[in-house]
Amino acid sequence: MDELIRVGVLGARGRMGAQVRAAVEAADGLALVAEVDEDDPRSALVDARAQVVVDFTHPDVVMDNLRYCVEQGLHCVVGTSGFDTARLDTLAGWLADRPGVGVLVAPNFALGAVLSMRFAELAARFYPSVEIIELHHPNKADAPSGTAAHTARLVARARAEAGLGRSPDATTHDEDGARGALVSDVRVHSVRLSGLIAHQELLFGGEGETLTIRHDSLDRTSFMPGVLLAVREIVGRPGLTVGLENLLPL
Amino acid sequence: MDELIRVGVLGARGRMGAQVRAAVEAADGLALVAEVDEDDPRSALVDARAQVVVDFTHPDVVMDNLRYCVEQGLHCVVGTSGFDTARLDTLAGWLADRPGVGVLVAPNFALGAVLSMRFAELAARFYPSVEIIELHHPNKADAPSGTAAHTARLVARARAEAGLGRSPDATTHDEDGARGALVSDVRVHSVRLSGLIAHQELLFGGEGETLTIRHDSLDRTSFMPGVLLAVREIVGRPGLTVGLENLLPL
Amino acid sequence: MDELIRVGVLGARGRMGAQVRAAVEAADGLALVAEVDEDDPRSALVDARAQVVVDFTHPDVVMDNLRYCVEQGLHCVVGTSGFDTARLDTLAGWLADRPGVGVLVAPNFALGAVLSMRFAELAARFYPSVEIIELHHPNKADAPSGTAAHTARLVARARAEAGLGRSPDATTHDEDGARGALVSDVRVHSVRLSGLIAHQELLFGGEGETLTIRHDSLDRTSFMPGVLLAVREIVGRPGLTVGLENLLPL
Amino acid sequence: MDELIRVGVLGARGRMGAQVRAAVEAADGLALVAEVDEDDPRSALVDARAQVVVDFTHPDVVMDNLRYCVEQGLHCVVGTSGFDTARLDTLAGWLADRPGVGVLVAPNFALGAVLSMRFAELAARFYPSVEIIELHHPNKADAPSGTAAHTARLVARARAEAGLGRSPDATTHDEDGARGALVSDVRVHSVRLSGLIAHQELLFGGEGETLTIRHDSLDRTSFMPGVLLAVREIVGRPGLTVGLENLLPL
Repeated sequence: MDELIRVGVLGARGRMGAQVRAAVEAADGLALVAEVDEDDPRSALVDARAQVVVDFTHPDVVMDNLRYCVEQGLHCVVGTSGFDTARLDTLAGWLADRPGVGVLVAPNFALGAVLSMRFAELAARFYPSVEIIELHHPNKADAPSGTAAHTARLVARARAEAGLGRSPDATTHDEDGARGALVSDVRVHSVRLSGLIAHQELLFGGEGETLTIRHDSLDRTSFMPGVLLAVREIVGRPGLTVGLENLLPL
Repeated sequence: MDELIRVGVLGARGRMGAQVRAAVEAADGLALVAEVDEDDPRSALVDARAQVVVDFTHPDVVMDNLRYCVEQGLHCVVGTSGFDTARLDTLAGWLADRPGVGVLVAPNFALGAVLSMRFAELAARFYPSVEIIELHHPNKADAPSGTAAHTARLVARARAEAGLGRSPDATTHDEDGARGALVSDVRVHSVRLSGLIAHQELLFGGEGETLTIRHDSLDRTSFMPGVLLAVREIVGRPGLTVGLENLLPL
Repeated sequence: MDELIRVGVLGARGRMGAQVRAAVEAADGLALVAEVDEDDPRSALVDARAQVVVDFTHPDVVMDNLRYCVEQGLHCVVGTSGFDTARLDTLAGWLADRPGVGVLVAPNFALGAVLSMRFAELAARFYPSVEIIELHHPNKADAPSGTAAHTARLVARARAEAGLGRSPDATTHDEDGARGALVSDVRVHSVRLSGLIAHQELLFGGEGETLTIRHDSLDRTSFMPGVLLAVREIVGRPGLTVGLENLLPL
Repeated sequence: MDELIRVGVLGARGRMGAQVRAAVEAADGLALVAEVDEDDPRSALVDARAQVVVDFTHPDVVMDNLRYCVEQGLHCVVGTSGFDTARLDTLAGWLADRPGVGVLVAPNFALGAVLSMRFAELAARFYPSVEIIELHHPNKADAPSGTAAHTARLVARARAEAGLGRSPDATTHDEDGARGALVSDVRVHSVRLSGLIAHQELLFGGEGETLTIRHDSLDRTSFMPGVLLAVREIVGRPGLTVGLENLLPL
């Protein structure tokens, strides 16, 4: 038992938190030792001697949670959204004072999303054309999705490094906006459809050929392999890590 | 030989015209008797005793061509673009004076495009959500494509008849226009990518399921079965017909 | 309240039965009046004055259930599998003695599956090539799926009526069976993959174009609109009906 | 002009050879100096002082061509099929005697095919399930395609290195072979359809998600960027190189 990684969950009664609890309990080498939600004291994490804390809570409380955990020397795996550069800088400052502690912040824990982004960076250098289509259930408030926007920026950077300009486009008439959004000069299209869950297509095109990378998330469980991987890796990775891709041997 | 349908081609040296000539020559039951392009006299059609004329020319000249052909009693199959309600009314007026003559005007002669539209009308009544993605080579000037816009209108009419309102959509943030164009209240997305030719996806979604109808045109030859069908049918179909779907037993 | 259709559920505690109960309770115009599972007396259906009985049970008991229901004058909607011609004949015999009673037996209640089959029949007449790919979770025991095999037979019949022979195929080397199964001369491919649920692609191909009809079932709830439609329609449709497609205005 | 790479083409009048000639002529930094087909003397390559020879000929003559070129000190880029281990060993032997000469043999020059293979190797380690679908025009003689079989072997090797066993599969009934071919324990499905050209889908699946990598070759021109890249690189890469992926910075 000594060798098990002791895991606490913040936001334990939320939908993602419930998945995390079940996944940790079923995983080899991990022990679920604390379940904390909004009405519970965070000290329960320390009392239970948690080593790693998984936070799927809310943008309004995540920074407080992280300050507490870092101060207490708890490693963190964070899936809560809402991290901008300012927040990441603040977090990095706290970690500078606690050099042994590791925190991972990731916008998407699905392996397929992470692999898609990595493949997108690799493919982007070779194709004159690229567009992104993301497709989600109709209850989503934002368009485009954070993952699509992030992917567009990665693609744009890779294209710039390869000396590629804008994708060719002879469109002269598009009164109604059918050509979608430009994110870092990459076209992104957002579909909202009943029956869908979370899907993304990256389309690359060149002379006589196209390459399509499609990721389909059909269930919240798809995030769990990434969360478990992160829990296992973060104990040996001090400082701030942004993006699950940094933990994968790609 | 008496039973062959005698076919003339207008725009015979254009890219589509060349395909039509080859297709007519290879087809059973048809004889290619006249090839007319911009520098040739249209009277060559009459001299050669053509029965059906296929017109893939240009919006600027097609109405002149059609007036001549109708006056001369020649049936017409028209793939030239640029027909609005006013032009169709004018054409119908000419045909009223020549009751034996038939003209077909069609925006798309690919069987798959026609079948897609028909299936879209049928499916539209059953699904709360629908969106259209059309994907073309990057040299296309217009977005969305004429076929996508036409399909959106067909879908909207079918939904209205079935008492369906707008597709559900909780989007509150879309500053950059990722959600695409609204055509008759149907979202249409236009992708432009090197390597592509002409493609369209119709996405229908409901409780726990989606239905996708995808048409890929990889070659101009895909229009020829529809053109040949039209040539054979129009000799027995006087008056104005708009859309190849009217000639298919669907 | 008098106008509500009174619905009983057989197999009420099974996974599909639970969905049916929830769907009936949430539906306008229907009242859930009896829930019967294997340990309950079927007479509860009569006691509750059910008008329509929905049966998602097991091939071993469904015929007994249907004999009882037909004798009692209860209309039935049946999603249980295992119906062959002999069973359908037996059922038709029982119904001949009770001319006012209607029974629907359907292999698939998803609207998209029914629409796919209908579209397949329509498209099959126009394309020289057709193949079917069905994709399911890896716990499925049978290959190909019943829906794929049924679709292949519908396609084959439509092709025969249109005078089409086999799809063109120059394959001379296929030692390992990569070309899949032949069902009524139509190639069917079965994919089994973690993460998938139930999906089917119908591929039609001709000169320079392809038409693809894809159905994705992501959730058991996708069957409910079809079940509810059947419940509402079967009260006015005496005799035996096989296949939900007969109730849709296609 | 001195800095141009001087290129000769073997099989210059074949369909691929014609594409290569046009691509070399249009490319910066390359000069087309010799065009040799079956009735021409190979010495024309030497006479024209070619530095790199591109060979798209036939399995029956390619080894003779290569022996000649290597002896003459000409670098080679080879797209002709039919290379097995024995042939590659023979070729490596010839090159051992001419240490300055480089030869690239590649089964597929499309960038998307090469990227697909590389991505497949990377993704294979992370997913319990994988299957391959390759789709081609109906005139293809072999099933599965060489590229699909090669990809299956790469995937199998990557899975073995990651300690993964067979993909999960509960199939107990598959009398007709719908589950396709097993190539190195990876299921491969071959579709043959009019209207298609050359396409491949790699499907990876895990808990609640799937990742699909699709490559569509719509035109023979899709091979040209890979051929030109190879011509430029092979002059600085002595010895035998198998597979275009070795020249890409992946």
